[in-house]
Amino acid sequence: MEIDGHTKLIALIAHPAGHSQSPAMYNFAFEHEHMNDRFLALDVEPEGLPQAIAAVRTFKMPGVSVSMPFKQQVIPLLDHLDDAAKMIGAVNTVVNHDGVLTGYTTDGIGFVNALKDNGVALAGQTMTLAGVGGAGTPIAIQSALSGLKTLNVFNINDSSVTNAKRVVQVINDQTDCHATFYPLEDREQFRQAIAASNLYTDATGLGMGKLVDKTLVDDPTWFHPDMTVFDTVYAPAETKLMRVAKQAQVAHVINGQGMLLNQGVAAFKLWTGHEMPVAAVRHEIFKED
Amino acid sequence: MEIDGHTKLIALIAHPAGHSQSPAMYNFAFEHEHMNDRFLALDVEPEGLPQAIAAVRTFKMPGVSVSMPFKQQVIPLLDHLDDAAKMIGAVNTVVNHDGVLTGYTTDGIGFVNALKDNGVALAGQTMTLAGVGGAGTPIAIQSALSGLKTLNVFNINDSSVTNAKRVVQVINDQTDCHATFYPLEDREQFRQAIAASNLYTDATGLGMGKLVDKTLVDDPTWFHPDMTVFDTVYAPAETKLMRVAKQAQVAHVINGQGMLLNQGVAAFKLWTGHEMPVAAVRHEIFKED
Repeated sequence: MEIDGHTKLIALIAHPAGHSQSPAMYNFAFEHEHMNDRFLALDVEPEGLPQAIAAVRTFKMPGVSVSMPFKQQVIPLLDHLDDAAKMIGAVNTVVNHDGVLTGYTTDGIGFVNALKDNGVALAGQTMTLAGVGGAGTPIAIQSALSGLKTLNVFNINDSSVTNAKRVVQVINDQTDCHATFYPLEDREQFRQAIAASNLYTDATGLGMGKLVDKTLVDDPTWFHPDMTVFDTVYAPAETKLMRVAKQAQVAHVINGQGMLLNQGVAAFKLWTGHEMPVAAVRHEIFKED
Repeated sequence: MEIDGHTKLIALIAHPAGHSQSPAMYNFAFEHEHMNDRFLALDVEPEGLPQAIAAVRTFKMPGVSVSMPFKQQVIPLLDHLDDAAKMIGAVNTVVNHDGVLTGYTTDGIGFVNALKDNGVALAGQTMTLAGVGGAGTPIAIQSALSGLKTLNVFNINDSSVTNAKRVVQVINDQTDCHATFYPLEDREQFRQAIAASNLYTDATGLGMGKLVDKTLVDDPTWFHPDMTVFDTVYAPAETKLMRVAKQAQVAHVINGQGMLLNQGVAAFKLWTGHEMPVAAVRHEIFKED
């Protein structure tokens, strides 16, 4: 379906925005489903966020994706916040219903559904999580909301530690999951927590870009085969952490691509009410089989 | 070229906007020229214009088309006005250079270049023009700027008559063309003016929609063969006026499609610096040979 006078605009609002894979993913889905929508990445200077959100209403856009550095800043500009987004304290998806804007975070749902796609359930399990930033926060909170029994949160003692401790408190106050904060500097505690866990999730961003050779766990004996190791990094497709986990013959070693895809599936549904054609997206956009 | 993170957004800002042919025309041109731009029609409620123009800056859009009801309202929201746009008192094209917005009117250029495409020059000629509204105003002023010698302006005595008289005054004050206002109700004066003209242009909008059976001239003897009759209507492709002109064996009988195309060619150049692939657009979008 070609763009015509009725084509709806959905966009990513971020700074920078040009690197985003989202236009490829969503536009492929729109075309595959013969939907009259298009997704563009719009680079907005930090001071331009209020105008950008005003434009969502003015242009009657079904919604937007919100990424760095706007995921927290956007909150006071919205009319409503989804409960999970409220707990997470960040929004990555805005939905416009007749000018009323509601903020959601689909990253946590993306994580939970990526696990599900790999046959891994969270209910009743114990997870150790390293890093409670932009990815780790929704992972922690959505996992707790999805029935995780025990969560060991490890964070380094930098400016992000305040949020890490807040997340632990929110989980203990508002969910049935039992969460505990530990300093990531305590290596022996970290080793023991992983040993006692069904899942280990790295949401630090180590293993990509300049940190491609870094991993918090380089000793395969820290892992056991009947566990899951999840790395939020998706480029490279196999990080050093994942290689260590495979050496340890860990049953499920998963990168961040499924989380990226599934957060998009959830956003797509929120904006359009339609199911994203997941198999086709995996094949055409992520070049999976 | 598929939409990616760097694709630039250009848009029509109008209310309503859904009927617009512009997305088809511009997106075909972008794809044909392998350009990383897309054009969407954005329906903006009348009170939303300031936010819409703010968004042009916020989203770093190369520019926008502006249509009804915003062609005058937009002027105080811009930083600069092109000289012709200033005389016309309306803007249909906004160009964004690093956040500085300049307003242009390409409708008049579209008219002059549509005539040129049909081998009709304006320099030194006499034209009778009926209707000095959104289309007639830029036609009158750009024709005067392009060397027309004499312009007979006919307008009905409704709320638009003030603008018609203003246009005559602007032309007489600021160009070498001699313009005269006449009431359209004076049928004999109208007949005589057409008889003395090389060109007759109808910019009233009669001959389309509910007025499809209407024409100001239904007597072929009012025309002479060595003249040009131009109707700004393009749907239907042949209006009742054009049929009357053909009965009179008028040399050049032209509908508004070439004007539409050529105003778009001028806007395309202003936004992108590129030439629109006119022949391909004519063939693919307007289904001409």
